Amino acid sequence: MGPIINRNVFRDLSYGLYLVASRHEGRSNGQVVNTVIQVTSDPPRVAVIINKSNFTHELIAQSRVFSASVLEESAPMAFFGPFGFRSGRDINKLEKTAYKEGITGCPLIIEHTLSVLEAKVIQEIDLGTHTVFIADVLSSEALKEGTPLTYKYYHQVLKGKSSPKAPTYESEK
Amino acid sequence: MGPIINRNVFRDLSYGLYLVASRHEGRSNGQVVNTVIQVTSDPPRVAVIINKSNFTHELIAQSRVFSASVLEESAPMAFFGPFGFRSGRDINKLEKTAYKEGITGCPLIIEHTLSVLEAKVIQEIDLGTHTVFIADVLSSEALKEGTPLTYKYYHQVLKGKSSPKAPTYESEK
Repeated sequence: MGPIINRNVFRDLSYGLYLVASRHEGRSNGQVVNTVIQVTSDPPRVAVIINKSNFTHELIAQSRVFSASVLEESAPMAFFGPFGFRSGRDINKLEKTAYKEGITGCPLIIEHTLSVLEAKVIQEIDLGTHTVFIADVLSSEALKEGTPLTYKYYHQVLKGKSSPKAPTYESEK
Repeated sequence: MGPIINRNVFRDLSYGLYLVASRHEGRSNGQVVNTVIQVTSDPPRVAVIINKSNFTHELIAQSRVFSASVLEESAPMAFFGPFGFRSGRDINKLEKTAYKEGITGCPLIIEHTLSVLEAKVIQEIDLGTHTVFIADVLSSEALKEGTPLTYKYYHQVLKGKSSPKAPTYESEK
């Protein structure tokens, strides 16, 4: 008998929940992402992992810049609606969401947001279904105090679903 | 005035807390890591980010395999002692910790552990101070039910410190 992979184990890994947005040639989009992490402190660099089929992926791959908004735990479920399962190719996801324009031209979503950062991609790693974008942080700003939303809270308390495009997606049993 | 980086923003990002271990030619070591994430679901792949100066980095770079143990929230502060600020080059960090040998030969730490996985490195990305190891999950096992320890809980409740080698390290003010 070979080794066994128990996929439930992946649910024990902890993440935050973020909105990642980008803009290229006048087109903008944002999406919910659980995989925003700091990868080095000096220089300050982050990594973000995005499904290749997402419109936001297309925009980041072209513009090489993105923003990330750290959401607060008190964000209501309705807030996530526009960023869910419909593609930004078909609808303007930012239409009903407060944002400002950052130094990179990316929209910085500021609603239900504790802090924002903007980053410039320095490397991308092709992982088949997803790309890891490694990026230098160009600016970061704290907007307010509060408790950051976690992926666990989103699932367990807000009863949010994972997109099938998430790197952590496991089909519901 | 150029863009400003407020480093406090990085503290809003959420992580779990894990013990990552490896073994090469009879030498083993493990260390605390906050950056273990799933990067693709199909195939199941994870990324882990390790400081190049760590002994565990040396072992993973040579053996190309590692284990990760998802710690439980109830792990006492004393448990972290051996995995803290002294190098595994000088002491046997696993001496006082329960572990078993995995299919890769890596030690799987099972004390205060909810679940374990083993993975084989398929790609490494050099980020200066740190390396991102991307790895195929070879096996994963759930050991018990419980609440996974988060990086936030470790800092705020257990009053744990970050190693200066952590990707998320910010000097105390």
